[in-house]
Amino acid sequence: MSKKVLIVGGVAGGASAAARLRRLDEFAEIILFERDEYISFANCGLPYYIGETIKEREKLIVQTPESMKSRFNIDVRVNSEVIGIDTAKKVARIRSKENGEYEEHYDYMVLSPGARAIKPNIEGINHQRIYTLRNIPDTDNIKAYVDKRGIKNAVVIGGGYVGVEMAENLKNRGLDVTIVEAAPHIMAPLDTDLVTIVEKEILDKGIHLILNDGVKAFKDLDGSVEITLNSGVNLCADLVILAIGVSPDTGFLKDSGIALGARGHIIVNEKLETNAPNVYAVGDAIEIVDFVTKLNGAVALAGPANKQGRIAADNITGLGTTYKGTQGTSIIKVFDLTAAGTGNNERTLRRLKIPYKTITVHLESHASYYPGGFPLTLKLIFNEDGKILGAQSVGRDGVDKRIDVIATVIRLGGTVDDLTELELCYAPPFSSAKDPVNMAGYVAQNVLAGRVDPISMEQYMAYDQENTVLVDVRTELEFKNGHFEGALNIPVDSLRERLGELDKDKEILEYCQIGLRGYVASRILTQKGYKVKNIDGGYKSSLTMAVKPRIVEGLDISK
Amino acid sequence: MSKKVLIVGGVAGGASAAARLRRLDEFAEIILFERDEYISFANCGLPYYIGETIKEREKLIVQTPESMKSRFNIDVRVNSEVIGIDTAKKVARIRSKENGEYEEHYDYMVLSPGARAIKPNIEGINHQRIYTLRNIPDTDNIKAYVDKRGIKNAVVIGGGYVGVEMAENLKNRGLDVTIVEAAPHIMAPLDTDLVTIVEKEILDKGIHLILNDGVKAFKDLDGSVEITLNSGVNLCADLVILAIGVSPDTGFLKDSGIALGARGHIIVNEKLETNAPNVYAVGDAIEIVDFVTKLNGAVALAGPANKQGRIAADNITGLGTTYKGTQGTSIIKVFDLTAAGTGNNERTLRRLKIPYKTITVHLESHASYYPGGFPLTLKLIFNEDGKILGAQSVGRDGVDKRIDVIATVIRLGGTVDDLTELELCYAPPFSSAKDPVNMAGYVAQNVLAGRVDPISMEQYMAYDQENTVLVDVRTELEFKNGHFEGALNIPVDSLRERLGELDKDKEILEYCQIGLRGYVASRILTQKGYKVKNIDGGYKSSLTMAVKPRIVEGLDISK
Repeated sequence: MSKKVLIVGGVAGGASAAARLRRLDEFAEIILFERDEYISFANCGLPYYIGETIKEREKLIVQTPESMKSRFNIDVRVNSEVIGIDTAKKVARIRSKENGEYEEHYDYMVLSPGARAIKPNIEGINHQRIYTLRNIPDTDNIKAYVDKRGIKNAVVIGGGYVGVEMAENLKNRGLDVTIVEAAPHIMAPLDTDLVTIVEKEILDKGIHLILNDGVKAFKDLDGSVEITLNSGVNLCADLVILAIGVSPDTGFLKDSGIALGARGHIIVNEKLETNAPNVYAVGDAIEIVDFVTKLNGAVALAGPANKQGRIAADNITGLGTTYKGTQGTSIIKVFDLTAAGTGNNERTLRRLKIPYKTITVHLESHASYYPGGFPLTLKLIFNEDGKILGAQSVGRDGVDKRIDVIATVIRLGGTVDDLTELELCYAPPFSSAKDPVNMAGYVAQNVLAGRVDPISMEQYMAYDQENTVLVDVRTELEFKNGHFEGALNIPVDSLRERLGELDKDKEILEYCQIGLRGYVASRILTQKGYKVKNIDGGYKSSLTMAVKPRIVEGLDISK
Repeated sequence: MSKKVLIVGGVAGGASAAARLRRLDEFAEIILFERDEYISFANCGLPYYIGETIKEREKLIVQTPESMKSRFNIDVRVNSEVIGIDTAKKVARIRSKENGEYEEHYDYMVLSPGARAIKPNIEGINHQRIYTLRNIPDTDNIKAYVDKRGIKNAVVIGGGYVGVEMAENLKNRGLDVTIVEAAPHIMAPLDTDLVTIVEKEILDKGIHLILNDGVKAFKDLDGSVEITLNSGVNLCADLVILAIGVSPDTGFLKDSGIALGARGHIIVNEKLETNAPNVYAVGDAIEIVDFVTKLNGAVALAGPANKQGRIAADNITGLGTTYKGTQGTSIIKVFDLTAAGTGNNERTLRRLKIPYKTITVHLESHASYYPGGFPLTLKLIFNEDGKILGAQSVGRDGVDKRIDVIATVIRLGGTVDDLTELELCYAPPFSSAKDPVNMAGYVAQNVLAGRVDPISMEQYMAYDQENTVLVDVRTELEFKNGHFEGALNIPVDSLRERLGELDKDKEILEYCQIGLRGYVASRILTQKGYKVKNIDGGYKSSLTMAVKPRIVEGLDISK
């Protein structure tokens, strides 16, 4: 007897489930329902089509109903919305644009309804020049409007991944662009110290950034939109992109008995089964387990959705594959920069009251003696046992690689010791003999072993400096070029001879440019009996801080 | 009581050991002996300085004796060769250019003598225009000669990493370059199927490649070198680079009682201790354990040497750090291509009679709908239990990242199942929702589960095709453009309707372009009761094979 499988939603999770299911079971009857006109499109490419980096619209369409039929023998029904499910009778009710309402029986079902853009109940939110971006029709509408002459400026509400990508792409189209973000910083997966580097890049490229401010009201202004912010600031835009997040599109399940979480996400077990027999769910609409904390959460990412679709298909055919949680690995190109992260960030861990330690290294993307390298900042978050909880990185090259490696270590339950032992590709155009990932491991090991007592820039600024001496261990030239106010300059290379200048009764706070010489200085001082803290990431870690230590500016050594 | 530590050799391993030791122990007396004039130089950068990619010579010098003194309080003695060790008395005998011979007592010793270029006993090998490349003076000599006008051509003997890098850099200097390799292929860490892609790139860039041929004799020819190969071919070169490998520089240990392996490598335990009390050894001169096979071997790589130096220092100060073996992760830029590998290759596993399976995927370096991607070939080697034994990759972008991730999985003892679960960075400029690493894992899982029966191109060519049908499941257009001789064309999208054309009594060998459609076809046929093998990597896997299936060439679809 062949199985009849209904799949609800034809994009990442649903399309993956359908294709895998067919490869596993040539005889199943598979019907895929998609509410919209398009299935299996490249969501993540939509901003880049609007920005004309992707030039051909057809490249966004990965599969069509026709290709899914001929390749996988899937009965794809677009413009067909599943509006209700009777899990006792195993029947779905479908509303089709062409065929009206009807029912289909199922043996198995995969729910992949996705999420929709949040549109809060704000005055004027339905203005025709306020757009959200989730699918091909949204994209066509925005692009058609941008393609018209006379559009001068855009405001992007929300500084998440979609918001920032849209801002960059609209800027690339020649618009004057402003991002409005209600939180203190954009891009929540990145901690403050790293996201400020990204914010600087955005500002440097001429995008306006309004932080800590939200929208109070939208108003029409001769066809354009007037935006009043909570602060009272008024902006005017020909185009508004609303990108403040998504919510699971699970309204059709409300009478189905299928268990939903507090925010409407479908609850599934490790096999991605819902509480209803033979009903699986995948993608943005499900509640996942955070791989690191084991707490429930929700993550709207294409990678997990695709993998989950495949796993649901596996389980329908009895393979017993499990989904072990999402760690939230994500990446974004922001003009010339790349920012990426995996696992938990400090903000989350603080909120969850999970103890952690953190170190930051500023290194080169590849051997400094080989041309073409760029600075790379890598932050590692780990616990007392050395287990890695998260990592973030920002730079112009090689960011993806370092976060991928650390994401792999997290997935396999590795520790900072493992980071030091990784044998990664080294030739001068690609890395250094000790890769930044190895280096982050070494620094973390030193912290855990108590060989260095790091203090983050934030902690340093809040630190009671009453009975401390601040020492800058960089060269005289570096010092003259700018240093923290009140610092005494003793270059690390003359520290041994100049120990007499330091008072043993006072705690020493010392820093260098990126933390490496500071570590050497810290080791000398500690072993000579001083109490010493090393400012993590050095002077460089202060440069992009929103609130930074008072700096005495000096000569410009670039001249 | 402070320790007195002697370090023999001041490059990667020795310099790392010295610096780490000082950071751990401010009070130790540390003397570093270097036979040559330079310490801590960028070995891996030397070819690129000759090629003028690296323009400033001082960039090659990472540390000087002076900087090691001021930063780390190390007593660096250059032009000082350790010529003997009395491990009973704990005394080393040194021959210094300046100070003649003398002895130093030690409490601990780190041996990091490195390796020297092999110069076989071939007639004429001492011709002044035959160079080896290991250090700064070698580099200066070669560069000074190349910088002179009138040098037209070079022959590089040996197609290992140094040989290929030198060939590229000499080509970049405008020389006519020939590589002579005695083995059937260059770059032994890569298997035949992948290295042929690299060989094609080398040939495409105008370098001559002579494989399967070695040098019989060198002769002077008006100041240039005449090279007679075993085949009888005669070459003439203004410059010869001899790069056929290295041997450990351990002659000075022969009467020391320190145990050496069959080929002269220093034998150490997990803590990198030799059999002599308090004597450690690191770097190119030691015998390592292969991380995957646990067999002894030797690997001359900068990454392991640097890490080992640090571990030796750890153990001298009692930290008890262990070195868990080398997996041979390596990478090379070859003009626009990158080639990398980790773990064992097929050639090694066959030699060791270790059973393995292999799959190859040809994918895009990032989402195909986003511009700037390049084809990437990734080969995975694994065993019956899914344990990963090795991987190799060749492409123009993203090769380092994929091999780094798989190297990490190998290091943490992961399996092909782990590859499928990795949550890696995905945004269109960086990867696909299912990264090539995930895809390789999926394919390997399918092979292990028996869902597909792959046959490699090599196996296919040796296969008895008496009672088989060869089916090309690509489109008609692709088929017309070229296909394997004797193939029947049934596009996968019409396979279900055309099953009647296939004889159930015959085994079906089928292929597509890269293996993905072939897998779908294979699943259809298998479930319909056919016996079927899928040619791994598809038509594309044949394109660079030295010996390839007979191809019927057709129209050029690029026109």
